[in-house]
Amino acid sequence: MIKNFEELEMSITKAARIYGKKDIRIEDVEIADPREDQVQIKVKYCGICGSDLHAYLEGWGLPTTPHPLTGKTVPITMGHEFAGEVVKVGSHVQKLKVGDAVAVEPLIACGKCENCRKGFYNLCNKAAAKDGAGNFLGFSDNGGFAEYANVDEFFAHKMPTGMNYKLGALAEPTAVVFEAIKKSGLRAGQDVAVEGAGPIGLLTSMLAKLAGANHVYVIDVSEVRLQKANELGLKRTLNPNKVDVVKEVQKECPNGVDISFEAAGVQPTFESALKLTKRTGTLQIVALFGKPLKIDITNDVIMQGIDIITTLAYNNSYPEVLGILNNHRELFSKVITKQISLNEVVDQGIKALATEKNQMKILVSPEA
Amino acid sequence: MIKNFEELEMSITKAARIYGKKDIRIEDVEIADPREDQVQIKVKYCGICGSDLHAYLEGWGLPTTPHPLTGKTVPITMGHEFAGEVVKVGSHVQKLKVGDAVAVEPLIACGKCENCRKGFYNLCNKAAAKDGAGNFLGFSDNGGFAEYANVDEFFAHKMPTGMNYKLGALAEPTAVVFEAIKKSGLRAGQDVAVEGAGPIGLLTSMLAKLAGANHVYVIDVSEVRLQKANELGLKRTLNPNKVDVVKEVQKECPNGVDISFEAAGVQPTFESALKLTKRTGTLQIVALFGKPLKIDITNDVIMQGIDIITTLAYNNSYPEVLGILNNHRELFSKVITKQISLNEVVDQGIKALATEKNQMKILVSPEA
Ligand SMILES: [Zn+2]
Ligand SMILES: [Zn+2]
Ligand SMILES: [Zn+2]
Ligand SMILES: [Zn+2]
Repeated sequence: MIKNFEELEMSITKAARIYGKKDIRIEDVEIADPREDQVQIKVKYCGICGSDLHAYLEGWGLPTTPHPLTGKTVPITMGHEFAGEVVKVGSHVQKLKVGDAVAVEPLIACGKCENCRKGFYNLCNKAAAKDGAGNFLGFSDNGGFAEYANVDEFFAHKMPTGMNYKLGALAEPTAVVFEAIKKSGLRAGQDVAVEGAGPIGLLTSMLAKLAGANHVYVIDVSEVRLQKANELGLKRTLNPNKVDVVKEVQKECPNGVDISFEAAGVQPTFESALKLTKRTGTLQIVALFGKPLKIDITNDVIMQGIDIITTLAYNNSYPEVLGILNNHRELFSKVITKQISLNEVVDQGIKALATEKNQMKILVSPEA
Repeated sequence: MIKNFEELEMSITKAARIYGKKDIRIEDVEIADPREDQVQIKVKYCGICGSDLHAYLEGWGLPTTPHPLTGKTVPITMGHEFAGEVVKVGSHVQKLKVGDAVAVEPLIACGKCENCRKGFYNLCNKAAAKDGAGNFLGFSDNGGFAEYANVDEFFAHKMPTGMNYKLGALAEPTAVVFEAIKKSGLRAGQDVAVEGAGPIGLLTSMLAKLAGANHVYVIDVSEVRLQKANELGLKRTLNPNKVDVVKEVQKECPNGVDISFEAAGVQPTFESALKLTKRTGTLQIVALFGKPLKIDITNDVIMQGIDIITTLAYNNSYPEVLGILNNHRELFSKVITKQISLNEVVDQGIKALATEKNQMKILVSPEA
C-alpha cells in the first residue's frame, strides 16, 4: 500500500540511538504507527539521567541479546524521562486522545505475571533480562531522545491542566524519589538525612521537606551542590570534608535521624548513613551501587534494629507525583539547569552531567 | 540485723558464672532479696543457646566495663532461656504471687527512653553498651544458670496452666523465631525456605509451618540435622552437598519462595537464601553473622526488589509464644534433646552443643 506524504512524514523520526559503549548516533529512523493499545507522542522534553551516563560510559543496562519482552537489542533510542503531546492513538486506546499532554512512565512490563498482578509491575518477572538489561524505555525499547515515540496507554499519564512539559519531564526522576519516600514510611515530623546532593539526593530532600519532615540534612562534599540545595530551600547542608557530620546532626537529633536516604551509592556514604540513623530507624537506598557493599550486619544493622530498604523505579505513583509537581511548579522548575537540542545530547548533555557539578537536570528538546 | 536460718539459705545460690573467655565457674554466691518491682524465682530449667557458646569461646556480648543500665561487669551468672517458680515478690509487684510458674523474657531495658516508649524495649537506647555487651540477663545481668534469680515483674510471664517448665524454658528461643516470622509478614499459603537446621532454623521452620506456610524447605549440610527436621514433621529437607537446592525449590516454586530465613549466618548460606527468594520477596535474617556480609546490593537486592530484614530478640511477643508452646506441647518437647545439672553446664552442655550435631536444645536443671 502506498502511503500519502503526510503519513510518510510521520513515520520518520530523528533519534539519539545508542549502539554500545560510547557510541551514540543521531539518526533518522522509521517509526511504526502505534500498536492498538499505544499512543504516539511528539516528545517535548526528555531529561538526561545518571543511568544514561552509565549506559554511555559502560554499556550499563543495555540489551546485548534480544530483551525477553520487547525482543529488542541495541541500537536503542535512549531517554526515559519524557513528556509530550499525543499525535496518534491506537484503535483500542480508551482514555487518551490526540492533543493530550502526557508524562511517560517508561517501564516495560507484561501486565500478567505474578508481580504485575500484585501491582509490582516495576519488577515484572517477564521483563527481567538475564543480561541485566533494564526494563525501561530508553534501554530495552525505544525511548524519548527522539521527535516521536510510541508508548503504551497504560504508561502514558495525562498531565494536570496548565502544567508545562518541562515539569512533565521531571515526573520520572521525581517518581524514583517519591517511591523511596513512600516505602520508607516517612511521616511528617520525622528527621531525615540525605547522603548525596546530586539530582536524586536533592529531589529526595525536597520531597521529604514537602512530606513534612522536620530536620532535613543534605550531605555532600561539593559546595556547589550544597549551594544548589540552599537555593531549593534546604537549609541544613553539611560537608563531611568540613564538619563532623554525625556531631552536627546530633546537636538537633541526639539519637540520630528517623530515616536516612542513600543517594550517593558508595561504601563511605553508606556507612555514614548508617551512623546517622537512630536505633530502630530506616536506611533507604535510592542510589544504585557500582560495587558490592560490605555490611557489618550483626553490629551495625541487627544490633541497631535498623531496616535497610531499597526500591527499584516506581509503581502506581505517577498520579501523586504529577500532583506534587503541579502544586509546586516554581520550586521544581529550579531543578532544571540547562536545555539542549537532540544534536547536543552527548557533548552538552551526558558529558556535562558527568563533569559539571552545578548541573542538576538537563532537558533535551527534540524540537529545538 | 541477724537473719534466721531460712532467710539465710534463700540468699545463697549456686550459679554458673562467667569470668571471661573459657572461664566459667560453678560457685555459691549471695543473692539479694528482689527489688520492689521484681520477683525472685527458683529456676527449674534454663536452656543453653548458641550465644552462650560464643560468650564462652570468645567472650562475646560480655560487659568488660560496667553496663550502662545494670552497672555490672563480669563475673556474671550466665543463662537467658529460663523458667521457674516465684518464691519471693517485691513490695510493688502487682500480678504475680509466690507459687506462680513464669517464663522469663531475659531483656534489660530502661522502660523510659524513646525506643522503650515505642514498644521497642528490645532496642532500649539506655541499654546499648559501647563495648557491645548484650542487653540480656545472662550477659549484662545475672541469669538463669543458678538455683535462684531475680527478675523484673515486667519480664516474668505467667505460664499457661498445666504447661511444664521445660516448655517454659523454650519460650526464649521460640520468641526469637516468632519475632522474625512476625516481622517477615508471613501469611498462610506462602512458601518458605530456611537456611540452617540448627535449633533456631528448626524452630523457624516449625513456626512457619504452624503459621500456615505452604512449602517449607529446610536446608543444611548435616544429614543428622535434616533427620531431626523430619522427626519434627518437616518433610522438605535439602542438602546442598547432595542436590542443587535452587533447582529443587523451583520444581514446586518456579519463581522462588516468598520468604527465606537465614538461620546459618555465613556468606554462602546468605547468598543461597537470596537466590531462593522470589523477586519482591523477603529475606529475613535470624542468625547473627560473625563476619561482615558482602552484598551486591544493585543486582541481587535492588533489581530483585527483595527486602532484607533483621530482628534482634523480641518485644511484646511472649504471650503469643507461650500460647503456641502450650497448644503444641508434644511437638515442642521433641526439641529438647538432653538434660543436665548445673555442674555439667560446660562439659556436657556448652561443649556438647558445639560438637554434637544431634543436639538441639540442652536444658540445665539447677535442682538436679
Ligand atoms: Zn532515570
Ligand atoms: Zn509482568
Ligand atoms: Zn538465646
Ligand atoms: Zn529504654
